[in-house]
Amino acid sequence: MKVVKFGGSSVASAPQIDKVFNIIKSDPNRKFVVVSAPGKRFAEDTKVTDALIAYYNAVKNKGDVETSQNWLIDRYSEITTDLNLSDKIIEEIKNNILSLAELDVDNDVFAYDSFLAAGENNNAILIAEYFDNQGLKAQYINPKKAGIFVTEEPGDARLLDESNKKINELNDLDGVLVIPGFFGITEKGKICTFSRGGSDITGSIIAAGTNADIYENFTDVDGIFVAHPGIIENPESISEVTYKEMRELSYAGFSVLHDEALVPARLAGVPIVIKNTNNPNHPGTKITTERKDNSRPVIGIAAESNFASINISKYLMNREVGFGRKVLQSLEDNNIRFEHMPTGIDDLSVIIRSRFLTAELEEKVLTELQEALNPDELHLEKDLSVIVIVGEGMKEHIGVTSTATRALSDAGINLEMLSQGSSEVSVMFVVKGDQEKEAITALYDAFF
Amino acid sequence: MKVVKFGGSSVASAPQIDKVFNIIKSDPNRKFVVVSAPGKRFAEDTKVTDALIAYYNAVKNKGDVETSQNWLIDRYSEITTDLNLSDKIIEEIKNNILSLAELDVDNDVFAYDSFLAAGENNNAILIAEYFDNQGLKAQYINPKKAGIFVTEEPGDARLLDESNKKINELNDLDGVLVIPGFFGITEKGKICTFSRGGSDITGSIIAAGTNADIYENFTDVDGIFVAHPGIIENPESISEVTYKEMRELSYAGFSVLHDEALVPARLAGVPIVIKNTNNPNHPGTKITTERKDNSRPVIGIAAESNFASINISKYLMNREVGFGRKVLQSLEDNNIRFEHMPTGIDDLSVIIRSRFLTAELEEKVLTELQEALNPDELHLEKDLSVIVIVGEGMKEHIGVTSTATRALSDAGINLEMLSQGSSEVSVMFVVKGDQEKEAITALYDAFF
Repeated sequence: MKVVKFGGSSVASAPQIDKVFNIIKSDPNRKFVVVSAPGKRFAEDTKVTDALIAYYNAVKNKGDVETSQNWLIDRYSEITTDLNLSDKIIEEIKNNILSLAELDVDNDVFAYDSFLAAGENNNAILIAEYFDNQGLKAQYINPKKAGIFVTEEPGDARLLDESNKKINELNDLDGVLVIPGFFGITEKGKICTFSRGGSDITGSIIAAGTNADIYENFTDVDGIFVAHPGIIENPESISEVTYKEMRELSYAGFSVLHDEALVPARLAGVPIVIKNTNNPNHPGTKITTERKDNSRPVIGIAAESNFASINISKYLMNREVGFGRKVLQSLEDNNIRFEHMPTGIDDLSVIIRSRFLTAELEEKVLTELQEALNPDELHLEKDLSVIVIVGEGMKEHIGVTSTATRALSDAGINLEMLSQGSSEVSVMFVVKGDQEKEAITALYDAFF
Repeated sequence: MKVVKFGGSSVASAPQIDKVFNIIKSDPNRKFVVVSAPGKRFAEDTKVTDALIAYYNAVKNKGDVETSQNWLIDRYSEITTDLNLSDKIIEEIKNNILSLAELDVDNDVFAYDSFLAAGENNNAILIAEYFDNQGLKAQYINPKKAGIFVTEEPGDARLLDESNKKINELNDLDGVLVIPGFFGITEKGKICTFSRGGSDITGSIIAAGTNADIYENFTDVDGIFVAHPGIIENPESISEVTYKEMRELSYAGFSVLHDEALVPARLAGVPIVIKNTNNPNHPGTKITTERKDNSRPVIGIAAESNFASINISKYLMNREVGFGRKVLQSLEDNNIRFEHMPTGIDDLSVIIRSRFLTAELEEKVLTELQEALNPDELHLEKDLSVIVIVGEGMKEHIGVTSTATRALSDAGINLEMLSQGSSEVSVMFVVKGDQEKEAITALYDAFF
């Protein structure tokens, strides 16, 4: 059996949902269908999830609730009309949307999650109905019935271990099962969402729980490219990638699959295939434990901008027990995640994502570090990019770092930092933001 | 004026002390002479400092005190006899050595330091007398008179800021001043030593305090080599090196000068020259702020063995605020200094010097980390070597890392880790211990 998940753009309109129907119909093994909320139909479109956030804010701030409600109802109504669904369905969706306004947004910590989850939930109801109308036996399964029980962490739910047994019982149900993505149910019956983009997680959970043969994740691209198509013209696409490689690529910008979605499938050994709803015959990219073709050392180049680095120098800092710990403590006290901490002999840098640094926090942290460490030098560098080259083949190809650094130096790119850790699946470079594109191009030319 | 410091082997015997005398006599600017305790005369010889440690232990444990005393008195007596010094001097030294046994070793925290300091102190008395006998106006100056006032940290003293004014007054004294290295005096008048090898520190302190033109540090080698002569046959010697480069080299095994000795001279802008007592006409190696010749990217290759690495993997570890801090906290709680913390995407390693890890501590730390972090993987790797290539010229020579990694990969050496920090004066490699020599050879061939 297969678990098939469709992203927002794949279920954004009647014609897209009809494509989904044809994909499911074409393969009787596609039994479990996880759906997102309607996404964008065109670049400037609003996602239903974003409209639900606006709706929540309107309720919370006693603003123009009605406009939000009408927009959402119209959005679904357009789809149900185009799909010739009965009025019963749009009535059900309408009532659901209107009822959200009655939630206790001031006291119920799960209220926000309930607003957001409505996007996926109504779409699942609608899609199951459409399948059935088209003569494909299908039913909507809500997360409670599906057995997706989660922790009480609004916006960041995690599956409870005991859920898997219940999820496995879905195998006993007849026909196609349409399950809304993105959220689960707490033991007390509250709706609680995964982190944003979490429909991928639901798909992975269902794939693991049902012991599926494969987890097909349908998006709007023909799989994964070795480098960003916005930077490299017509980059090669990747046919196979390991879970570990995928994780390292997704760390720096390969966002086609939610990070946390890898885990359940990986642990259960279910391969994931990234496919294109608009081009379903393309084989896509398969994510699995081991690649058949390991001849290439590097499988992909990922890059992400907007990193900052706090650079600290102090003579004989390695003699001071607690030096590095104090640096990280100060960040932790200010709730700033650090990404890397490369060290020289008497210097240490901490790489963080700039979005965690407000101007105020910046000053606070620098002042704290100055006081706690009495360093010889301390300064913040902004607008850095992290570039990661990834490939399990590196272990066998000893010269990868050298080829990469040669390519970068030949292109006149100055490495701010370079780190090759013990995983041997990736090498990380930090470059100035304005050299990011040149760096990616140089690395692409060297390895592909 | 010059400050001139002589290491243990330079003042180990009468013929050596006569060389010292000729060096001082040959240049009237050599006014301040800092001396070590008598060191080894041949490879299997015992250093006076080590004999003093044995003496201390004999007193402390009520062992064979007399043998220690006799050995020490004989050792000095041989020198005074060979130098034709009056009996008065050896009597003074004898009385000093015997009097140490009366120190309150059980309660006086400075007793150990007093034993150790006797090595330098008696040698300074002896050498000043010899200079004077030879017709060179000279006097012994004890650290109290010299103004070397230090913190109350036995075995790890630091100079008190207010000392410099007093030290500067040494300029007003006539003739050559012979000062024992290695120790200072607390404000309460107690003898307190710097860390072992600290005569270098005394020289640097005197050089800074007297505003000397130069600090000549005499050892038994013609300066510093670009790589260890035990590994590379006839390596080039370095004529000029910056303070910063010297520090980075000394981090990994270039132990010709005590780490802490760089600081006072560096802050006061006094250049240091490493020279050879046995070949005083060789220009040696000059350590200064800026090198004249910057044409070469790499000036030296340092290496040190016996590092260990704790390798930790956990999926999405970068999302966990506090992950890295907890790792370092556990080490700190066990009083283990960390050297580096290279990170990959979901893995983190901590490099430590193996000498800080007993088998017991090893197990304790691993257990604590397992409990605190719940990692996917956790293991300790031992017998690693850290190799550092150093050079201020790297900043201008963009391809250094690439040349180095190419050389290592061509030699079949697998990099366990690679880190290039923000200082841009060094690149650090971690390799398996049994590949250290091959790695150094490969890097030497690439850069020299």
